[in-house]
Amino acid sequence: MGYERFDKVRAIAWRAGRLELLDQRLLPDQCLWLRCSDVLEVAEAIRTMVVRGAPAIGITAAYGVVLAARARYAEDPADWRRAIESDLDRLAASRPTAVNLFWALAVMRETIATIPDGEDPEPPLFAVAERIAADDLAANRRMGRLGASLIDGPADLLTHCNAGSLATGGFGTALGVVRAAVAEGRVGRVYADETRPWLQGARLTAWELIEDGIPVTLVADGAAAYLMAQKTVRWVVVGADRIAANGDVANKIGTYGLAVQARRHGVGFMVVAPSSTIDMATADGTAIPIETRDEDELLSLAGRRIAAPGAQAWNPVFDVTPAELVTAIVTEKGIVESPDAAAMQALMAPTAG
Amino acid sequence: MGYERFDKVRAIAWRAGRLELLDQRLLPDQCLWLRCSDVLEVAEAIRTMVVRGAPAIGITAAYGVVLAARARYAEDPADWRRAIESDLDRLAASRPTAVNLFWALAVMRETIATIPDGEDPEPPLFAVAERIAADDLAANRRMGRLGASLIDGPADLLTHCNAGSLATGGFGTALGVVRAAVAEGRVGRVYADETRPWLQGARLTAWELIEDGIPVTLVADGAAAYLMAQKTVRWVVVGADRIAANGDVANKIGTYGLAVQARRHGVGFMVVAPSSTIDMATADGTAIPIETRDEDELLSLAGRRIAAPGAQAWNPVFDVTPAELVTAIVTEKGIVESPDAAAMQALMAPTAG
Repeated sequence: MGYERFDKVRAIAWRAGRLELLDQRLLPDQCLWLRCSDVLEVAEAIRTMVVRGAPAIGITAAYGVVLAARARYAEDPADWRRAIESDLDRLAASRPTAVNLFWALAVMRETIATIPDGEDPEPPLFAVAERIAADDLAANRRMGRLGASLIDGPADLLTHCNAGSLATGGFGTALGVVRAAVAEGRVGRVYADETRPWLQGARLTAWELIEDGIPVTLVADGAAAYLMAQKTVRWVVVGADRIAANGDVANKIGTYGLAVQARRHGVGFMVVAPSSTIDMATADGTAIPIETRDEDELLSLAGRRIAAPGAQAWNPVFDVTPAELVTAIVTEKGIVESPDAAAMQALMAPTAG
Repeated sequence: MGYERFDKVRAIAWRAGRLELLDQRLLPDQCLWLRCSDVLEVAEAIRTMVVRGAPAIGITAAYGVVLAARARYAEDPADWRRAIESDLDRLAASRPTAVNLFWALAVMRETIATIPDGEDPEPPLFAVAERIAADDLAANRRMGRLGASLIDGPADLLTHCNAGSLATGGFGTALGVVRAAVAEGRVGRVYADETRPWLQGARLTAWELIEDGIPVTLVADGAAAYLMAQKTVRWVVVGADRIAANGDVANKIGTYGLAVQARRHGVGFMVVAPSSTIDMATADGTAIPIETRDEDELLSLAGRRIAAPGAQAWNPVFDVTPAELVTAIVTEKGIVESPDAAAMQALMAPTAG
């Protein structure tokens, strides 16, 4: 379908036995790769948002386990399996909301259990980390095709935050649908919320779309409702950090407001996420832990105080969109329209054969 | 009611025969008063947002007419009335959406028509400008009392942009209600949207509330819906730049989205504005001209580019909230609950007597 033309950006690379991450705190001003040589550096990179985006966090954590296994095995080949537990805990504590992190750690933990005593754990763990990354990219391309099929073009699209190549193993979830829809001629104009406080839209989504030759028009987060009232936007397309068993969606703060506005305006609301984002152990959105970050992320920008001295801030970085406001959840396993517990169960049920 | 304790901030002053404006572009970093000696400087101050807020723009324009009359009368005492027309036009062209500007110019124009030939126009025009400013302050105090009476406390409030002392002759419209409600013990916590792109909430509302000893908690514009979902906010309280004859409200971009979210959460939506903001000549919100400002206001912050190079932006600075989403419009003439054309007509009808 010619998707390659719109798919050049990558943010996670394994080079010379180390994990390299495109530092997303510095984009778009600088394209600097940060090299992580041990698990402490990986956990810190996740915590400080060098890397962000639910699938990208999961992939990064998987490579972090590889680095941890290498170090623990070098320390004591007989005891690495016990010693690595604290590294897994440290990675798990780096961010609370995105479930892909815990999913990836669970996959790595299963692999750890299968490695024979005395065998160097790095090669098998590296192979699984590579597979997680490759599967994510393949899932995104498939979701791009599926999601684009829902868009009767040419339609204007609105996205929020960054659910793109930077947030995944490549191609993106929401931006994968945008890329595929652009490649298929289904898109008029791509709008992106700037996404305060971290400006993922203005800094990251705009950067990666422009890198891939896709024009993008930014709007203030508060302008989205008025944009929808102008009646050109037909779909809001977003990613997810965790989807509960009933189809409730945790995603970047601001997503829920968009869903409310989309419903009012008859605009479709599409959530694009790999099945590793779906947490069948969490019954509904009220049970999803929502991370609140430092007030200063809102009160300052680029190290400069913007708010009046003395002002406080409330800085939740995710919110929960109830399933009833979601038109479709697009996963690599298929599309769930009007999601609810039964439909999510059907999607996630082990297939026969 | 002890309102004075919470009412120290002023932004417009006539000193030594000149108009002085607290430069709102520089707050909260600097408190710098800009002196305007002629009408060109006044029009430029409005255009460049040294002064902003619908009532404040009206008051400023009225004083601008005083300065214009002084200069035109000095140039040619026989021809000032003709010559001042271009000054009125220039002031009228400074901002398009706030109707208080055109209302104040109409009041000044009526006064101009009553001044006898050969008489120095400055004293009578100055007296009217002073009256416009004083009436605005009195209206705000009255609206504060009326609006606060709607709030069963202690309730958390959410405001947007800056409809405070800085936006008016003093006390504020929406923030007048906040001040009065705080003074009357009706308020739990005051939340303010930061209000991108110009950050009126973070820079101005936070500054003036803290100056007056009222604690304030900032939220990202995109966090308002999630805040309402937490069920502590009971009223959204905002100002207005123009209210149409059917009760539709033009106000700072983001207001419409808040109204949609407030309706979903059963949160009251209160619009506070003097009757000079009501434009009975405009049938409904679709006829209100909505200003779109330079893309750079969104793409940059404090002179620093924040968006990725190549990104475009759509920067409407107001939006329109349909009357059906408004719980109450509070004016100095009284409260209109569930506004519609008949109720607005009744409010604005000349009273007998």
